[in-house]
Amino acid sequence: MDEITYKPIGIIHTSFRSTSEVPKESKDVNLAKGTIEVAPQYAEGLRDIEGFSHLFVIFHFHLSRDYPLLVKPHRDDKLRGVFATRSPARPNPIGLSVVRLTKREGNILSIQGADMVDGTPVLDIKPYVPQFGQEGILKVGWLERHLESRRGRP
Amino acid sequence: MDEITYKPIGIIHTSFRSTSEVPKESKDVNLAKGTIEVAPQYAEGLRDIEGFSHLFVIFHFHLSRDYPLLVKPHRDDKLRGVFATRSPARPNPIGLSVVRLTKREGNILSIQGADMVDGTPVLDIKPYVPQFGQEGILKVGWLERHLESRRGRP
Repeated sequence: MDEITYKPIGIIHTSFRSTSEVPKESKDVNLAKGTIEVAPQYAEGLRDIEGFSHLFVIFHFHLSRDYPLLVKPHRDDKLRGVFATRSPARPNPIGLSVVRLTKREGNILSIQGADMVDGTPVLDIKPYVPQFGQEGILKVGWLERHLESRRGRP
Repeated sequence: MDEITYKPIGIIHTSFRSTSEVPKESKDVNLAKGTIEVAPQYAEGLRDIEGFSHLFVIFHFHLSRDYPLLVKPHRDDKLRGVFATRSPARPNPIGLSVVRLTKREGNILSIQGADMVDGTPVLDIKPYVPQFGQEGILKVGWLERHLESRRGRP
Protein backbone atom coordinates (compact mmCIF):
# COMPACT_ATOMS: atom_id res chain seq x y z
CA MET A 1 0.00 0.00 0.00
CA ASP A 2 1.13 3.51 -0.74
CA GLU A 3 3.00 5.58 1.78
CA ILE A 4 1.20 8.48 3.44
CA THR A 5 2.99 11.68 4.37
CA TYR A 6 1.96 14.17 7.03
CA LYS A 7 3.44 17.39 8.31
CA PRO A 8 3.19 18.23 12.03
CA ILE A 9 0.74 21.00 12.87
CA GLY A 10 2.52 21.79 16.11
CA ILE A 11 4.71 20.60 18.92
CA ILE A 12 4.13 19.51 22.52
CA HIS A 13 6.12 21.01 25.35
CA THR A 14 6.40 19.05 28.59
CA SER A 15 9.01 18.62 31.32
CA PHE A 16 9.76 15.04 30.22
CA ARG A 17 13.12 14.83 28.48
CA SER A 18 13.00 11.11 27.74
CA THR A 19 10.50 8.28 27.41
CA SER A 20 11.46 6.89 30.81
CA GLU A 21 10.40 10.15 32.50
CA VAL A 22 6.87 10.06 31.04
CA PRO A 23 4.39 8.96 33.71
CA LYS A 24 2.61 5.64 33.17
CA GLU A 25 0.08 5.60 36.03
CA SER A 26 -3.06 7.52 35.27
CA LYS A 27 -3.00 9.48 38.52
CA ASP A 28 0.41 10.83 37.51
CA VAL A 29 -0.62 11.30 33.89
CA ASN A 30 -3.60 13.38 34.97
CA LEU A 31 -1.28 15.77 36.80
CA ALA A 32 1.19 16.08 33.94
CA LYS A 33 1.01 19.59 32.53
CA GLY A 34 2.18 20.71 29.15
CA THR A 35 1.42 23.00 26.25
CA ILE A 36 0.62 22.40 22.63
CA GLU A 37 2.14 25.04 20.41
CA VAL A 38 0.15 25.03 17.20
CA ALA A 39 2.04 26.44 14.22
CA PRO A 40 0.75 29.99 13.53
CA GLN A 41 -0.51 29.09 10.06
CA TYR A 42 -3.00 26.66 11.60
CA ALA A 43 -4.10 28.83 14.54
CA GLU A 44 -7.38 29.79 12.87
CA GLY A 45 -8.36 26.12 12.97
CA LEU A 46 -8.53 26.37 16.78
CA ARG A 47 -11.62 28.59 16.78
CA ASP A 48 -14.18 27.40 19.37
CA ILE A 49 -11.82 24.78 20.77
CA GLU A 50 -11.88 26.44 24.20
CA GLY A 51 -15.47 25.23 24.60
CA PHE A 52 -14.24 21.67 24.99
CA SER A 53 -12.86 20.48 28.30
CA HIS A 54 -11.08 17.50 26.74
CA LEU A 55 -9.34 16.92 23.45
CA PHE A 56 -7.95 14.00 21.52
CA VAL A 57 -4.34 14.68 20.62
CA ILE A 58 -2.87 12.55 17.84
CA PHE A 59 0.89 12.71 17.79
CA HIS A 60 4.02 11.07 16.45
CA PHE A 61 6.18 8.98 18.78
CA HIS A 62 9.30 10.56 17.35
CA LEU A 63 11.69 8.57 19.54
CA SER A 64 10.20 5.20 18.57
CA ARG A 65 12.45 3.08 16.38
CA ASP A 66 11.77 -0.64 16.19
CA TYR A 67 8.40 -2.32 16.47
CA PRO A 68 8.05 -5.83 17.81
CA LEU A 69 4.57 -7.15 17.00
CA LEU A 70 4.36 -8.67 20.48
CA VAL A 71 5.09 -6.46 23.47
CA LYS A 72 5.11 -6.90 27.22
CA PRO A 73 3.16 -3.93 28.56
CA HIS A 74 4.12 -1.99 31.67
CA ARG A 75 3.26 -4.06 34.74
CA ASP A 76 2.03 -7.00 32.71
CA ASP A 77 3.80 -10.35 32.48
CA LYS A 78 2.55 -11.66 29.15
CA LEU A 79 3.33 -10.79 25.56
CA ARG A 80 0.39 -9.02 23.93
CA GLY A 81 -0.21 -8.08 20.33
CA VAL A 82 0.96 -4.51 19.84
CA PHE A 83 -2.49 -3.45 18.55
CA ALA A 84 -3.99 -4.62 21.87
CA THR A 85 -1.69 -2.17 23.69
CA ARG A 86 -0.78 1.50 23.58
CA SER A 87 2.94 0.80 23.29
CA PRO A 88 4.85 3.62 21.55
CA ALA A 89 6.74 1.02 19.52
CA ARG A 90 4.22 0.19 16.79
CA PRO A 91 4.28 -0.21 13.01
CA ASN A 92 3.12 3.39 12.60
CA PRO A 93 4.30 5.13 15.78
CA ILE A 94 1.14 7.18 16.25
CA GLY A 95 0.12 8.21 19.75
CA LEU A 96 -3.36 9.08 20.96
CA SER A 97 -4.04 10.79 24.28
CA VAL A 98 -7.08 12.40 25.81
CA VAL A 99 -6.01 15.62 27.50
CA ARG A 100 -7.81 18.26 29.51
CA LEU A 101 -7.73 21.72 27.97
CA THR A 102 -7.18 24.23 30.76
CA LYS A 103 -6.43 27.40 28.80
CA ARG A 104 -6.02 28.71 25.31
CA GLU A 105 -3.91 31.75 24.49
CA GLY A 106 -3.82 32.27 20.75
CA ASN A 107 -2.04 29.30 19.26
CA ILE A 108 -0.93 27.90 22.66
CA LEU A 109 -3.09 25.30 24.39
CA SER A 110 -2.38 24.55 28.05
CA ILE A 111 -3.19 20.94 28.81
CA GLN A 112 -3.24 18.37 31.59
CA GLY A 113 -2.69 14.70 30.92
CA ALA A 114 0.36 15.44 28.79
CA ASP A 115 2.00 12.01 28.75
CA MET A 116 4.39 12.86 25.94
CA VAL A 117 8.11 13.56 25.73
CA ASP A 118 9.05 17.22 25.28
CA GLY A 119 9.28 18.08 21.60
CA THR A 120 6.71 15.54 20.40
CA PRO A 121 5.25 16.50 17.00
CA VAL A 122 1.46 16.90 16.91
CA LEU A 123 -0.42 15.57 13.89
CA ASP A 124 -4.00 16.43 14.76
CA ILE A 125 -6.33 17.70 17.46
CA LYS A 126 -9.99 16.71 17.72
CA PRO A 127 -12.73 17.42 20.24
CA TYR A 128 -13.31 14.66 22.77
CA VAL A 129 -16.96 13.71 22.98
CA PRO A 130 -18.17 10.85 25.16
CA GLN A 131 -19.05 7.89 22.97
CA PHE A 132 -21.07 5.68 25.24
CA GLY A 133 -23.69 6.28 27.82
CA GLN A 134 -23.26 2.88 29.40
CA GLU A 135 -19.65 2.06 29.88
CA GLY A 136 -20.70 -1.18 31.56
CA ILE A 137 -21.09 -2.71 28.12
CA LEU A 138 -17.38 -2.43 27.50
CA LYS A 139 -14.94 -5.30 27.61
CA VAL A 140 -11.35 -4.30 28.16
CA GLY A 141 -9.61 -7.63 27.54
CA TRP A 142 -6.32 -8.30 29.28
CA LEU A 143 -6.52 -4.89 30.92
CA GLU A 144 -9.42 -5.95 33.11
CA ARG A 145 -7.30 -6.93 36.09
CA HIS A 146 -5.20 -3.81 35.80
CA LEU A 147 -8.04 -1.33 35.74
CA GLU A 148 -7.97 -0.69 39.45
CA SER A 149 -4.47 0.64 39.12
CA ARG A 150 -5.58 2.54 35.98
CA ARG A 151 -2.42 2.92 34.05
CA GLY A 152 -2.04 5.91 31.82
CA ARG A 153 -0.70 4.09 28.79
CA PRO A 154 -1.30 0.35 28.86
CA MET B 1 8.87 20.70 10.81
CA ASP B 2 9.93 17.49 9.13
CA GLU B 3 7.52 15.37 7.19
CA ILE B 4 6.41 12.07 8.69
CA THR B 5 5.74 9.03 6.55
CA TYR B 6 3.52 6.09 7.43
CA LYS B 7 2.53 2.93 5.63
CA PRO B 8 -1.01 1.57 6.03
CA ILE B 9 -1.27 -1.59 8.14
CA GLY B 10 -4.53 -2.60 6.52
CA ILE B 11 -7.65 -1.53 4.73
CA ILE B 12 -11.29 -1.04 5.71
CA HIS B 13 -14.09 -2.65 3.76
CA THR B 14 -17.57 -1.14 4.01
CA SER B 15 -20.56 -0.76 1.73
CA PHE B 16 -19.99 3.01 1.38
CA ARG B 17 -18.60 3.88 -2.04
CA SER B 18 -18.37 7.61 -1.47
CA THR B 19 -18.17 10.13 1.35
CA SER B 20 -21.80 11.13 0.84
CA GLU B 21 -22.94 7.57 1.60
CA VAL B 22 -21.19 7.41 4.98
CA PRO B 23 -23.73 7.82 7.79
CA LYS B 24 -23.46 10.93 9.97
CA GLU B 25 -26.04 10.24 12.67
CA SER B 26 -24.74 8.07 15.47
CA LYS B 27 -27.70 5.68 15.39
CA ASP B 28 -26.85 4.95 11.75
CA VAL B 29 -23.11 4.87 12.41
CA ASN B 30 -23.63 2.28 15.15
CA LEU B 31 -25.36 -0.03 12.67
CA ALA B 32 -22.73 0.38 9.97
CA LYS B 33 -20.87 -2.89 9.57
CA GLY B 34 -17.50 -3.39 8.00
CA THR B 35 -14.27 -5.33 8.22
CA ILE B 36 -10.69 -4.34 8.81
CA GLU B 37 -8.31 -6.43 6.77
CA VAL B 38 -4.97 -6.22 8.50
CA ALA B 39 -2.03 -6.96 6.20
CA PRO B 40 -0.78 -10.50 6.93
CA GLN B 41 2.65 -9.33 8.03
CA TYR B 42 1.06 -7.44 10.95
CA ALA B 43 -1.47 -10.12 11.96
CA GLU B 44 0.62 -11.27 14.93
CA GLY B 45 0.15 -7.80 16.41
CA LEU B 46 -3.57 -8.58 16.84
CA ARG B 47 -2.99 -11.17 19.57
CA ASP B 48 -5.47 -10.66 22.47
CA ILE B 49 -7.39 -7.98 20.62
CA GLU B 50 -10.57 -10.09 20.70
CA GLY B 51 -10.79 -9.44 24.44
CA PHE B 52 -11.75 -5.83 23.76
CA SER B 53 -15.29 -4.94 22.81
CA HIS B 54 -14.30 -1.57 21.35
CA LEU B 55 -11.27 -0.31 19.46
CA PHE B 56 -9.87 2.99 18.34
CA VAL B 57 -9.23 2.91 14.62
CA ILE B 58 -6.89 5.56 13.26
CA PHE B 59 -7.20 5.89 9.51
CA HIS B 60 -6.37 8.09 6.55
CA PHE B 61 -9.14 10.12 4.87
CA HIS B 62 -7.81 9.14 1.46
CA LEU B 63 -10.48 11.09 -0.45
CA SER B 64 -9.79 14.33 1.41
CA ARG B 65 -8.10 17.01 -0.66
CA ASP B 66 -8.33 20.59 0.50
CA TYR B 67 -8.51 21.78 4.08
CA PRO B 68 -10.25 24.99 5.01
CA LEU B 69 -9.28 25.97 8.57
CA LEU B 70 -12.89 26.96 9.24
CA VAL B 71 -15.63 24.46 8.46
CA LYS B 72 -19.38 24.37 8.79
CA PRO B 73 -20.16 21.02 10.41
CA HIS B 74 -23.08 18.80 9.44
CA ARG B 75 -26.30 20.30 10.83
CA ASP B 76 -24.53 23.33 12.27
CA ASP B 77 -24.91 26.84 10.95
CA LYS B 78 -21.66 28.46 12.10
CA LEU B 79 -18.09 28.21 10.95
CA ARG B 80 -15.95 26.33 13.48
CA GLY B 81 -12.22 25.81 13.66
CA VAL B 82 -11.39 22.52 11.98
CA PHE B 83 -9.69 21.23 15.15
CA ALA B 84 -12.96 21.74 17.03
CA THR B 85 -14.66 19.36 14.57
CA ARG B 86 -14.18 15.89 13.15
CA SER B 87 -14.32 17.08 9.56
CA PRO B 88 -12.43 14.79 7.16
CA ALA B 89 -10.93 17.86 5.48
CA ARG B 90 -8.10 18.76 7.87
CA PRO B 91 -4.43 19.68 7.58
CA ASN B 92 -3.45 16.05 8.19
CA PRO B 93 -6.48 14.06 7.05
CA ILE B 94 -6.39 11.57 9.92
CA GLY B 95 -9.62 9.93 11.05
CA LEU B 96 -10.37 8.48 14.46
CA SER B 97 -13.37 6.26 15.14
CA VAL B 98 -14.38 4.07 18.03
CA VAL B 99 -15.75 0.81 16.66
CA ARG B 100 -17.23 -2.29 18.24
CA LEU B 101 -15.28 -5.46 17.55
CA THR B 102 -17.77 -8.25 16.89
CA LYS B 103 -15.49 -11.00 15.56
CA ARG B 104 -11.91 -11.74 14.70
CA GLU B 105 -10.92 -14.34 12.14
CA GLY B 106 -7.17 -14.32 11.70
CA ASN B 107 -6.26 -10.97 10.22
CA ILE B 108 -9.88 -9.94 9.58
CA LEU B 109 -11.72 -7.89 12.21
CA SER B 110 -15.51 -7.58 11.89
CA ILE B 111 -16.64 -4.23 13.25
CA GLN B 112 -19.71 -2.10 13.86
CA GLY B 113 -19.56 1.66 13.76
CA ALA B 114 -17.65 1.63 10.50
CA ASP B 115 -18.19 5.21 9.33
CA MET B 116 -15.54 5.06 6.65
CA VAL B 117 -15.60 4.87 2.88
CA ASP B 118 -14.77 1.46 1.40
CA GLY B 119 -11.05 1.16 0.77
CA THR B 120 -9.95 3.49 3.58
CA PRO B 121 -6.34 2.84 4.62
CA VAL B 122 -5.83 1.99 8.30
CA LEU B 123 -2.85 3.46 10.11
CA ASP B 124 -3.25 2.04 13.59
CA ILE B 125 -5.55 0.11 15.93
CA LYS B 126 -5.58 0.60 19.70
CA PRO B 127 -7.72 -0.80 22.50
CA TYR B 128 -10.51 1.50 23.65
CA VAL B 129 -10.51 1.93 27.39
CA PRO B 130 -12.91 4.27 29.16
CA GLN B 131 -11.06 7.37 30.26
CA PHE B 132 -13.41 8.96 32.71
CA GLY B 133 -15.65 7.68 35.42
CA GLN B 134 -17.68 10.85 35.54
CA GLU B 135 -18.56 12.08 32.14
CA GLY B 136 -20.55 14.87 33.73
CA ILE B 137 -17.32 16.80 34.12
CA LEU B 138 -16.99 17.09 30.38
CA LYS B 139 -17.67 20.21 28.38
CA VAL B 140 -18.44 19.62 24.74
CA GLY B 141 -18.40 23.17 23.43
CA TRP B 142 -20.50 24.02 20.42
CA LEU B 143 -21.70 20.43 20.26
CA GLU B 144 -23.73 20.82 23.46
CA ARG B 145 -27.00 21.66 21.75
CA HIS B 146 -26.53 18.87 19.23
CA LEU B 147 -25.91 16.08 21.68
CA GLU B 148 -29.49 14.97 21.80
CA SER B 149 -29.33 14.16 18.14
CA ARG B 150 -25.90 12.55 18.71
CA ARG B 151 -24.23 12.86 15.40
CA GLY B 152 -21.71 10.27 14.39
CA ARG B 153 -19.04 12.64 13.16
CA PRO B 154 -19.45 16.23 14.34
